[in-house]
Amino acid sequence: MAPLVLYAGKPADRAAYERHIARAAREAGVEIRLCMDLAEVDPAEVDYLVFAGSGPVSDFAPFTNLKAILSLWAGVENILKLPLPADVPLVRMVEDGLTLGMIDYVVGHVMRHHLDIDQYIEGNFAGEWGVGYPPLARDRHVGVLGLGTLGTACAERLAANDFRVSGWSRSEKSVPGVRCLAGEEGLERVLAEAEILVLLLPLTPDTTRLLDAHRIAMLPQGACIVNAGRGPLIDHDALLAALDAGRLRHATMDVFDIEPLPAGHRYWGHPRVTVTPHIASATRPETASESLVRQIARGERGEPFTNVVDRALGY
Amino acid sequence: MAPLVLYAGKPADRAAYERHIARAAREAGVEIRLCMDLAEVDPAEVDYLVFAGSGPVSDFAPFTNLKAILSLWAGVENILKLPLPADVPLVRMVEDGLTLGMIDYVVGHVMRHHLDIDQYIEGNFAGEWGVGYPPLARDRHVGVLGLGTLGTACAERLAANDFRVSGWSRSEKSVPGVRCLAGEEGLERVLAEAEILVLLLPLTPDTTRLLDAHRIAMLPQGACIVNAGRGPLIDHDALLAALDAGRLRHATMDVFDIEPLPAGHRYWGHPRVTVTPHIASATRPETASESLVRQIARGERGEPFTNVVDRALGY
Ligand SMILES: NC(=O)c1ccc[n+]([C@@H]2O[C@H](COP(=O)([O-])OP(=O)(O)OC[C@H]3O[C@@H](n4cnc5c(N)ncnc54)[C@H](OP(=O)(O)O)[C@@H]3O)[C@@H](O)[C@H]2O)c1
Ligand SMILES: NC(=O)c1ccc[n+]([C@@H]2O[C@H](COP(=O)([O-])OP(=O)(O)OC[C@H]3O[C@@H](n4cnc5c(N)ncnc54)[C@H](OP(=O)(O)O)[C@@H]3O)[C@@H](O)[C@H]2O)c1
Repeated sequence: MAPLVLYAGKPADRAAYERHIARAAREAGVEIRLCMDLAEVDPAEVDYLVFAGSGPVSDFAPFTNLKAILSLWAGVENILKLPLPADVPLVRMVEDGLTLGMIDYVVGHVMRHHLDIDQYIEGNFAGEWGVGYPPLARDRHVGVLGLGTLGTACAERLAANDFRVSGWSRSEKSVPGVRCLAGEEGLERVLAEAEILVLLLPLTPDTTRLLDAHRIAMLPQGACIVNAGRGPLIDHDALLAALDAGRLRHATMDVFDIEPLPAGHRYWGHPRVTVTPHIASATRPETASESLVRQIARGERGEPFTNVVDRALGY
Repeated sequence: MAPLVLYAGKPADRAAYERHIARAAREAGVEIRLCMDLAEVDPAEVDYLVFAGSGPVSDFAPFTNLKAILSLWAGVENILKLPLPADVPLVRMVEDGLTLGMIDYVVGHVMRHHLDIDQYIEGNFAGEWGVGYPPLARDRHVGVLGLGTLGTACAERLAANDFRVSGWSRSEKSVPGVRCLAGEEGLERVLAEAEILVLLLPLTPDTTRLLDAHRIAMLPQGACIVNAGRGPLIDHDALLAALDAGRLRHATMDVFDIEPLPAGHRYWGHPRVTVTPHIASATRPETASESLVRQIARGERGEPFTNVVDRALGY
């Protein structure tokens, strides 16, 4: 019998996923039984759980025969806090739409800081005419912390835009056109040069408050930060102090310790801070459904899933 | 005897050009006599005039033996108004620094409009959290008017950033990854789709006020304009009317009919307008000197110069 797939994501996305999962399965020639409503299935019969923390499932105990939990999110630190069945693979979301959207966001904000566009927006410019063109991208150092699916894709695109890119990850990587470093010493080398620093790390015990006062102080004078990873990667008091002191030029952040960022938080309206409301990139039902179907097809062929979360490492 | 090269550009750039022209000639093995001061030469002995409209030379009559006038500017509409010797080639500036700087500017501002970054800058954002991510670059149409040195380079880089790029020029071009069109009908097809329109045309009788009310009306609702060509390419009353009516979302302009843009001009402080002070890109002495030396070497070998201005066409 075709595997039973239960959608347990945000209700608002249900219609889109119903259409696109069915289409993607048809196009890939993968037979599935797709159920969009928890109330309509016997949990013990569900083979694949398409899951988001904001969906209807919080108790996994009745799902006794799961082959995989397919997360709709790329970042799984909150999912890992749930009472997950220990022996069922948790697969995190990797899909073209999410990756391409993140590339756009990162290139857009890095370019914005590279050109210092803000000074011209809304008639603020009061300098001399014909003066003040920026260095060329090829003379600008950009650091990318995290060289996973998203970090690697962004680092490659930044390099294709002529930036001098250094990347950092836990295990040492090889990315064409990107200087790849690892370890504490590698981190210090990336920080020391990064005029623009992009954070694309997952949130784990090891990465929490990674960017603390000590490491912020290693960045060049006037550096900018783009945080598209997770809020708690940064020590916010230290960041605010560095921004207020003019040590850092700007921080553009898409993610925060508490989201939505509470009204009255010092980041709101801070002249050196840009808050984007967790829109750097989103899982897009059209492309994500194709990714879900590919994972299900792998499972049905008895092949290992890709992008399985390492629960010990936390990502 | 080595050819006599006279620098007649901006006094402020003299020191940089003195150093870099000498270095570039040495590195290329090209022998030249370099003079930095009009008062120190007999004009009749000058072989190559390195020229900017803002420099000390306005009378060309004494320069009776010129082999070429080497413009430091890419846009030559003002140089063509001068009493140039009819039989001396006017060579316009094409050099890596200028091209790369323009790519950065164009990609930066196109990305900014693509992502609608402005709404988040300086705490202006008041929308819903986690809502409002933009389409992917691959679903965004960008039009580039002018497919010369700069337009082609920018169109290629925009395509490398995944945008759907259409370009337009006088003669039909072929640029990998870019839909290339020409003629009035081609222009209308580019305009009809261009959610973001980049102007990189030279200013000539044919291009003056090319973007008039009629053609602005052909753009999609909510389109953005990036003008890095010349101010008079646009009918400014028509543009302001379209911006005020909300037909266009934004215009980012680096060039104007009168520069510096006069205080009190409606563009200053207009919420849908960004004024940049003619800094999109600049001729950079380091790389421009290499280009100058290459042209001199060609002249000395009896080869034709490249990038010679067609005075009938005006560019
Ligand atoms: N703002 C948004 O809209 C948005 C959207 C999607 C995702 N995200 C965030 O982006 C994060 C990254 O996503 P991804 O798909 O690229 O994840 P990924 O493929 O798992 O990559 C994670 C990267 O971080 C590195 N890393 C992990 N722990 C580290 C440590 N302690 N020290 C050094 N490097 C470490 C990993 O190193 P190894 O390569 O050695 O394993 C890997 O390169 C997600 O976890 C999520 O939080 C944000
Ligand atoms: N804002 C700044 O900082 C800055 C810096 C440098 C340059 N610029 C401006 O950028 C302009 C372009 O520079 P470039 O080096 O790319 O010039 P270029 O190589 O001469 O290219 C000009 C392009 O415009 C096209 N064109 C000219 N007249 C046309 C017409 N009537 N209809 C359609 N297409 C027409 C040409 O078509 P063909 O290919 O068929 O000849 C060519 O593709 C310069 O003239 C200058 O005004 C601005």
